[in-house]
Amino acid sequence: MTRKKTETGFATIDHQRESRQGFPEVIYCEGKTPAQVAHIAGRIVAHGSVLLATRGSREHFAAVKRAVRGARYNPVSRTITANEKNIVPNGRGTILVVTAGTSDIPVAEEALETARVMGNPTERLFDVGVAGLHRILSRSELLERATVIIVVAGMEGALASVVGGLARVPVIAVPTSVGYGASFGGVAALLGMLNSAPPA
Amino acid sequence: MTRKKTETGFATIDHQRESRQGFPEVIYCEGKTPAQVAHIAGRIVAHGSVLLATRGSREHFAAVKRAVRGARYNPVSRTITANEKNIVPNGRGTILVVTAGTSDIPVAEEALETARVMGNPTERLFDVGVAGLHRILSRSELLERATVIIVVAGMEGALASVVGGLARVPVIAVPTSVGYGASFGGVAALLGMLNSAPPA
Amino acid sequence: MTRKKTETGFATIDHQRESRQGFPEVIYCEGKTPAQVAHIAGRIVAHGSVLLATRGSREHFAAVKRAVRGARYNPVSRTITANEKNIVPNGRGTILVVTAGTSDIPVAEEALETARVMGNPTERLFDVGVAGLHRILSRSELLERATVIIVVAGMEGALASVVGGLARVPVIAVPTSVGYGASFGGVAALLGMLNSAPPA
Amino acid sequence: MTRKKTETGFATIDHQRESRQGFPEVIYCEGKTPAQVAHIAGRIVAHGSVLLATRGSREHFAAVKRAVRGARYNPVSRTITANEKNIVPNGRGTILVVTAGTSDIPVAEEALETARVMGNPTERLFDVGVAGLHRILSRSELLERATVIIVVAGMEGALASVVGGLARVPVIAVPTSVGYGASFGGVAALLGMLNSAPPA
Amino acid sequence: MTRKKTETGFATIDHQRESRQGFPEVIYCEGKTPAQVAHIAGRIVAHGSVLLATRGSREHFAAVKRAVRGARYNPVSRTITANEKNIVPNGRGTILVVTAGTSDIPVAEEALETARVMGNPTERLFDVGVAGLHRILSRSELLERATVIIVVAGMEGALASVVGGLARVPVIAVPTSVGYGASFGGVAALLGMLNSAPPA
Amino acid sequence: MTRKKTETGFATIDHQRESRQGFPEVIYCEGKTPAQVAHIAGRIVAHGSVLLATRGSREHFAAVKRAVRGARYNPVSRTITANEKNIVPNGRGTILVVTAGTSDIPVAEEALETARVMGNPTERLFDVGVAGLHRILSRSELLERATVIIVVAGMEGALASVVGGLARVPVIAVPTSVGYGASFGGVAALLGMLNSAPPA
Amino acid sequence: MTRKKTETGFATIDHQRESRQGFPEVIYCEGKTPAQVAHIAGRIVAHGSVLLATRGSREHFAAVKRAVRGARYNPVSRTITANEKNIVPNGRGTILVVTAGTSDIPVAEEALETARVMGNPTERLFDVGVAGLHRILSRSELLERATVIIVVAGMEGALASVVGGLARVPVIAVPTSVGYGASFGGVAALLGMLNSAPPA
Amino acid sequence: MTRKKTETGFATIDHQRESRQGFPEVIYCEGKTPAQVAHIAGRIVAHGSVLLATRGSREHFAAVKRAVRGARYNPVSRTITANEKNIVPNGRGTILVVTAGTSDIPVAEEALETARVMGNPTERLFDVGVAGLHRILSRSELLERATVIIVVAGMEGALASVVGGLARVPVIAVPTSVGYGASFGGVAALLGMLNSAPPA
Repeated sequence: MTRKKTETGFATIDHQRESRQGFPEVIYCEGKTPAQVAHIAGRIVAHGSVLLATRGSREHFAAVKRAVRGARYNPVSRTITANEKNIVPNGRGTILVVTAGTSDIPVAEEALETARVMGNPTERLFDVGVAGLHRILSRSELLERATVIIVVAGMEGALASVVGGLARVPVIAVPTSVGYGASFGGVAALLGMLNSAPPA
Repeated sequence: MTRKKTETGFATIDHQRESRQGFPEVIYCEGKTPAQVAHIAGRIVAHGSVLLATRGSREHFAAVKRAVRGARYNPVSRTITANEKNIVPNGRGTILVVTAGTSDIPVAEEALETARVMGNPTERLFDVGVAGLHRILSRSELLERATVIIVVAGMEGALASVVGGLARVPVIAVPTSVGYGASFGGVAALLGMLNSAPPA
Repeated sequence: MTRKKTETGFATIDHQRESRQGFPEVIYCEGKTPAQVAHIAGRIVAHGSVLLATRGSREHFAAVKRAVRGARYNPVSRTITANEKNIVPNGRGTILVVTAGTSDIPVAEEALETARVMGNPTERLFDVGVAGLHRILSRSELLERATVIIVVAGMEGALASVVGGLARVPVIAVPTSVGYGASFGGVAALLGMLNSAPPA
Repeated sequence: MTRKKTETGFATIDHQRESRQGFPEVIYCEGKTPAQVAHIAGRIVAHGSVLLATRGSREHFAAVKRAVRGARYNPVSRTITANEKNIVPNGRGTILVVTAGTSDIPVAEEALETARVMGNPTERLFDVGVAGLHRILSRSELLERATVIIVVAGMEGALASVVGGLARVPVIAVPTSVGYGASFGGVAALLGMLNSAPPA
Repeated sequence: MTRKKTETGFATIDHQRESRQGFPEVIYCEGKTPAQVAHIAGRIVAHGSVLLATRGSREHFAAVKRAVRGARYNPVSRTITANEKNIVPNGRGTILVVTAGTSDIPVAEEALETARVMGNPTERLFDVGVAGLHRILSRSELLERATVIIVVAGMEGALASVVGGLARVPVIAVPTSVGYGASFGGVAALLGMLNSAPPA
Repeated sequence: MTRKKTETGFATIDHQRESRQGFPEVIYCEGKTPAQVAHIAGRIVAHGSVLLATRGSREHFAAVKRAVRGARYNPVSRTITANEKNIVPNGRGTILVVTAGTSDIPVAEEALETARVMGNPTERLFDVGVAGLHRILSRSELLERATVIIVVAGMEGALASVVGGLARVPVIAVPTSVGYGASFGGVAALLGMLNSAPPA
Repeated sequence: MTRKKTETGFATIDHQRESRQGFPEVIYCEGKTPAQVAHIAGRIVAHGSVLLATRGSREHFAAVKRAVRGARYNPVSRTITANEKNIVPNGRGTILVVTAGTSDIPVAEEALETARVMGNPTERLFDVGVAGLHRILSRSELLERATVIIVVAGMEGALASVVGGLARVPVIAVPTSVGYGASFGGVAALLGMLNSAPPA
Repeated sequence: MTRKKTETGFATIDHQRESRQGFPEVIYCEGKTPAQVAHIAGRIVAHGSVLLATRGSREHFAAVKRAVRGARYNPVSRTITANEKNIVPNGRGTILVVTAGTSDIPVAEEALETARVMGNPTERLFDVGVAGLHRILSRSELLERATVIIVVAGMEGALASVVGGLARVPVIAVPTSVGYGASFGGVAALLGMLNSAPPA
């Protein structure tokens, strides 16, 4: 077996992943130095792949920008992307990202950026939490035309259960740390979503 | 100050409570022997008060029945009651008890028995969890005519949030241990309910 | 159904809530940018409603002040309010807010501001924790004339149990994160309050 | 709106769910009496729908068998099924269920029965945990021909991560309570699976 | 150094402890076989020491009774004692054991038996929880004449805080598992007691 | 009853505590503003009592110093004291404070300051953790002449168990947050100390 | 690659493990039926390997005994063994198993059986917990002649720290669930051992 | 017994440890002042021992450098070392340190420095997590020539299980706090590693 990976001492880049799974390695920036992220990003882009780095700070981006031409930073989602011209539409339909509140938007944007660079059309439906149920009930046409729905919510995460009961398609629930103290930094939403009764 | 309590060695009955708070002491049966429960029940009834004992087993009831004429046992709610003729209607309106599922009924029945012996008219709305949202939406007239709503739910407890968003009256959320492993015996429902966004 | 909500991209304001539940949406500021809070606040005020924003920083307030004439900031409770002339007294009696210690005052003030803008007269009874029980026992007249009592306490939260045993009216217990390490940031108070024996 | 649900006092059956989501309500047996389960099962079957009840005991099955002709019980998965002739193949490809160990089989069988009655062809790959990695590596053809893979594992749940790195298709990870004390009844596997790095 | 301990294969009895700390080893019965407990008890009694075994079942006692003449079993406290004639009064004053409820008595009795065999006079004050505060306030003379007070309580454990605020002497708080689900088997009481504000 | 307390709006000072329990109220500074601490401190000192404030920052101290002549700050223990001339020796013997490591000293110093202002002679024995057992074994004369021993330790807190096995006097165990990640900020030490087998 | 494993539907036996790691697969019996355990055991023995099955009940053993000649059951350790004549001494020195108390012996015996069938000479040192420190200090010669020491303890697990400070060889700490409520079923011992300061 | 320890008031240095366990005391810097660390370091070096201090900040190092000639700081591992010329090769073979990702390197470097100053040759294998399994499979020669393998991983920690299944030598698993929210700061990795099925 010919090893298709580039070793850089601190990183063993898995260039096989693109052929094995359809998208190259994603860089998780936290805990890496800007120089490490920039080095890995440079290798991925040099390989002709689309770049996606998550949890990136402005310092990470500054280093990447010096190494990779045309890199872009989304400060809300904290993602760094490059080589977007190489994004291949995957043709499986639209991913709808729904949030319970405005405070959940940064997490939603990370999901949206990830979906987008992997070739999916996306739609947004923000701030439609269950305290005002009519907000989601009145947008059923959006739920119906999606292929996958991602529900992003903090606090008790009940929106995921409600959307799960309304939708025919797979629903991916993403807890956030939004909430008062008893949300325990997202644990309440996580548990709520893990227990959301899975309708067929 | 004249002490209005009856000491029986193992129990210091608080007969003042009825005048102080409008209902006599409630007996919590778990951890008490049948003889202890029967003894305390006998004192409460001898004092002319309505009896309510919760978490009672059939053994507890058997002992109470020997000590208190006309005692009744509800095996679903596991409550023992007596002196019901002395229940005083309190005239504050109906308490509606709602459950997410059929498995939550035992807890709901404990709430209903408690509400009833304290003089409240009650109504039931069972098995209307959020997986089939139309079940609760179609019964809005019930929600509207209640004075207080008690929502009993396990799993993620999302029904409390939904009812909280629909109702104008105070909603009391009661978690149950119904659910798969990730409900952690009711912790998921408890956290969900603690974080349920309180609309004004 | 005519949709009574204003979509602003990042927020779906629920203007129906005022007619459905008697008070408009409350803005939870954490996780929202100052610009987002100001935008939502502007819409609520433009709609003629009373504004209440909680967990607001000075930066949030600075943005709101530019958008909303007459906005006020309470730095202890961290609340932003406006349109207070439109507060409607609801005529249901006084809400008494009790704290165990001086360190619990910021949470108490958030409760007081919330009660006030929703049209309730309020009273304060601060720093009457159970270590010096005579402090609460000597103020029984205050407990008796309240319609609802809110008990705010950290550490073990025992004050809620004591007030619950003294009062005839509903008691709402609010845990705070005040305390040494073993309070686990408020968990001890939360558990204490959840288990506070509810006398009738 | 015509209400398409049958109220039986303790249960509000959601017959709309089949048209809304493609499969009727699933009965969760725990916490329900055998009579309750049998009653609900009878209604579902009378409506012409496929029956699936999970977490059923032999007592639950005995009651269902009296109410529903041809009901079957799988004692490993603890599922009760009926009306299987009405199963509609959904044509989306095979679901592969993989387990880390033999002790995980009961949970795997519940997943397999659920997949089957919803119209999916299924395959099994049991006892291929990561302690002997060659067991899963040598069966890559099975992983490749599945449309969805369900990984069932207890202990540390590492098999999910390994399969996630090998497969191109969505992987659903299911933790079990198999393990020594430090598995905390499945929490270790649950956390392991929640953190399994999701390759694109 | 001459080793003063008796090895019996499964137990290394610490006969030095009596001279080092004033009381011989206490046998914790859980997890030991009746034969093991009886063997260790026999050695302690043969050494002339007072015997105390805690968490003993009736099976443990049956075995001890065969090995040790005059052994006694208290089924409420689950303690086995013998050689009580050798108890030496320690002359430091009375230990008062207080409980919040009747259900806490078994734990209180274990404390009382332990205090007694170590030579302390004891008094009881049972079922004086904070829901009826006058019950403890009216018994201040008991609190005043104790040398040490042990407070045994489940649920939120608030009685410990109240007694701590009233008493001049050291207060030892003992949590029990009495309570509804949210007591988490005694964790709520444990945390409440750990955070009980220690007045000087 | 004449109320012996001074109300200052934000604080209800319990001046009775000194006669009831032998030491005036201790001020817990966290969560209080410097002005609040200074105001309460001023009242305590004006009343002729010894002042002790814990968890005080330099900002707290600066405010107290302006209000109270002769106030002192210990930056290691973070305590503020004043009126030390009024300390009354209580004559009950020496309190020995032992630490497992050097990092535990700040917590030990808080205990030492508290013991001192309450009139107790104190001794120190620092950095004698169980990894080098001879360090504590060689100082047995110190353990023997103490009346009470306070053991301060982080990590696994095993020193408390070892001292408990060596000493004849009451041992008070105090967990600290010293340790690597698996100490969970002191939880490991807390649990270790709660389970330390209490020899008689 | 020739696959050296035997598939039996419910089990994929990893016969490679013996050559890869020096000992064949160990059967974890919990969650497996007696028939499944017996089938797997038969295959392992037929392959000529030493059999070790852990967490076996008497029912598991009864089934294995019918399938495997000469199988033995240790009811204390709950292990099933066979083919012991094939045990190969590994010549690396003695493993010493130490327990804090008598109640920890079942876990210690599981460790001893495991060590033994893997070819190690073993020694026992039981009931030498830190409450009576001289018990372990007086046996230093045992600690010195071991190659590896396994410390088995419940409650706070402090014995592991003490042995770790005395021994030159690797110490493996094994927590048990022995203890009062605050041991949380072994969590206290687990945390204590995870934080045991690792001397070089 | 002559006491071989140097008391410095805040520290009781255990100079016996080197002869007892083969390496002198390691300084844990967190919670110690720079002056305390420098003082202890000076004593260790003056004694002729190799210095190792962990969790050191640049401030700690600055103080040590003034007290100890030739001290070195590794900012990645946050270790301070000195007297390295006195390192004695222990001749037991190479320690291989493996990480799942680049973000785990700081923890790996702390392990490497510790291994090195204790006289072990070391090797690195970084960023070979299970999402790209071929990265570790292709380096089996490294696993085979190690004497001990240390696996450092965050998130779900599955790499430890995979290495444990491949290696013949002892594997030490070290969890890190790398990961998204559901890693709970390293708890997921810790639990994963505690449950990693230990092959013989």
